[in-house]
Amino acid sequence: VTEAATTTLRTRIDGALRHFFDQTGPLLESVSADLSPAVAAVRDFVLDGGKRIRPTFCYWGWVGAGGEPEAEPIIWASASLELLQACALIHDDLMDRSDTRRGKPSVHRAFETAHAADGLSGSAQRFGESAAILLGDLALVWANHMFDASGFDGESVLRARPVFSAMCTEVMAGQFLDIVEQTAATSDLERALMVMRYKTAKYTVERPLHLGAALSGAATEVSAVYSGYGLPLGEAFQLRDDVLGVFGDPAATGKPAGDDLREGKRTVLIASTLANADADQCERFEKLFGDHGLDDSGVDELREIITSSGALAEAETLIEQRLHEALVAIDSSILTASARAALSDLAKAIAHRDS
Amino acid sequence: VTEAATTTLRTRIDGALRHFFDQTGPLLESVSADLSPAVAAVRDFVLDGGKRIRPTFCYWGWVGAGGEPEAEPIIWASASLELLQACALIHDDLMDRSDTRRGKPSVHRAFETAHAADGLSGSAQRFGESAAILLGDLALVWANHMFDASGFDGESVLRARPVFSAMCTEVMAGQFLDIVEQTAATSDLERALMVMRYKTAKYTVERPLHLGAALSGAATEVSAVYSGYGLPLGEAFQLRDDVLGVFGDPAATGKPAGDDLREGKRTVLIASTLANADADQCERFEKLFGDHGLDDSGVDELREIITSSGALAEAETLIEQRLHEALVAIDSSILTASARAALSDLAKAIAHRDS
Repeated sequence: VTEAATTTLRTRIDGALRHFFDQTGPLLESVSADLSPAVAAVRDFVLDGGKRIRPTFCYWGWVGAGGEPEAEPIIWASASLELLQACALIHDDLMDRSDTRRGKPSVHRAFETAHAADGLSGSAQRFGESAAILLGDLALVWANHMFDASGFDGESVLRARPVFSAMCTEVMAGQFLDIVEQTAATSDLERALMVMRYKTAKYTVERPLHLGAALSGAATEVSAVYSGYGLPLGEAFQLRDDVLGVFGDPAATGKPAGDDLREGKRTVLIASTLANADADQCERFEKLFGDHGLDDSGVDELREIITSSGALAEAETLIEQRLHEALVAIDSSILTASARAALSDLAKAIAHRDS
Repeated sequence: VTEAATTTLRTRIDGALRHFFDQTGPLLESVSADLSPAVAAVRDFVLDGGKRIRPTFCYWGWVGAGGEPEAEPIIWASASLELLQACALIHDDLMDRSDTRRGKPSVHRAFETAHAADGLSGSAQRFGESAAILLGDLALVWANHMFDASGFDGESVLRARPVFSAMCTEVMAGQFLDIVEQTAATSDLERALMVMRYKTAKYTVERPLHLGAALSGAATEVSAVYSGYGLPLGEAFQLRDDVLGVFGDPAATGKPAGDDLREGKRTVLIASTLANADADQCERFEKLFGDHGLDDSGVDELREIITSSGALAEAETLIEQRLHEALVAIDSSILTASARAALSDLAKAIAHRDS
């Protein structure tokens, strides 16, 4: 039953996004045909992939607070979060110099390649970077517009706007903390946990739920339940992400194996490794970690240290604890029954996902 | 009288921006002290400079349509445009690799310098770039929030939202057209004019006026008057910008002399030069133009070609024609008298400015 409901919800969200691009695209293309590749890049980025995690939580946040499940405005408001996510990912890939996203070239690489293929004037790399900056900006502008134009009355929009803005601010601030964290020569578990909380945990689960609740005009008790569920689950989500970034199957994740290790991404998993490994292991780890030319045996050696230090097992334990905490939080009668069932299934799927 | 009114308006706009940062900054800083430099950078960027052109037009767009001059929400809504402009400039400086803005280091350079001075880990250049991307994003998020939270009722906000979003979309799309234009090996006057229209003209004058009108709930006739005034004046604004970028006094503009020539910025002035100069001059021009190491005598030689081709005189003529067109458009009784007087003075000041 839940799988069918998830598919239906996804179809509705994708329909709203497609509708949005059908309205917005032609307006820009009528200004100049040169804008077609820009519109197509954002459209394809949003429509060709993504798990719709944030829209899904926003929707269930609405239903759980008593909102009408068949309402159309909540679908539009929820779908707008995919445009915000598109901005975050397009800019993130540029900052990380990632070549791929969801198994395809990242936006800056795609425009760089097109520039070179067309033999245009100037630096192809800079053209790709500029295009990615501007297309991320456009996605962010459209996220804000789609949210405000979702069909809710003005009073509801203004009531929910602080949550929407807080969500946007927190993800940007979390990313800023992340780039500051990456400038440290070593890892600190407490700082890594804080970055995780702001960059991902609140942004992925808690805030989307709050947004749905705010649109419904729900009582603050509902938002408190959503925090009790959303914060631990968001952390479980990110911890699983850390594990998949090191041990994930490239065929499932769409990212090359060991990519996070070559990039030297200082995650909670890495901080925990360095906190638990012995001095020799730590020295060896810091030597290989972040080496962009690291070969497969180097990747295997880092994985071995992460495993033997106990950090991998600790991460799995933390994921289970946080999942349990999330499930306990919604085991209350304040949410509607259908939302409780859906949020319970979603929590397990997210904590145990393989991509 | 008008100068005093302009000063008062500027004080009110700056007060709203200061108030906004006083609310927003501590929220972020309470998350982590590491966010203080981020907040300070955006705050200083917005408060330490800028002519408040867009907020000023938004305000007079409101008053001209019959809005109450003493109302507070219009000041907040107008001021939000400075945050949008901050996003556009921070990202623009990064894309152009500009070292300075308003006589101070650009945002990406400031964070690059701080990284190097603190001896942090990783690439200082990439840290500066990432910080500029994220701070531009934050400014854009805050622009949207400040607009929605300006104090207008929900109905007014939703009525004006399409104008606000169109303004954001157009400036990003215009910038995209600009980077595409810069990939052409030569200049085309018609394309340069279109880039100017979207990147600057609509964004600087017409849309802010429309926004003020939309917030007041004005009839479409008012918006038509604003287009008749705003489009030519916006073009005059950009043409003056082109001229100042080549011939401006560095002490007044805060930008090094001849910067646009070394950058190879393909503006309307440049397209007009190449359309009017003879073959030898064109060849010589394309040889020197865009050379980052160009010395002062090279800059002088390019200036000489721009002048002798007649392009400079043509630009001055175009500016006067467009100023005249703008003044004629508002010489109508549909706008309130105070707004007509203010818009007339603003038009002359903008067309004849030296910075």
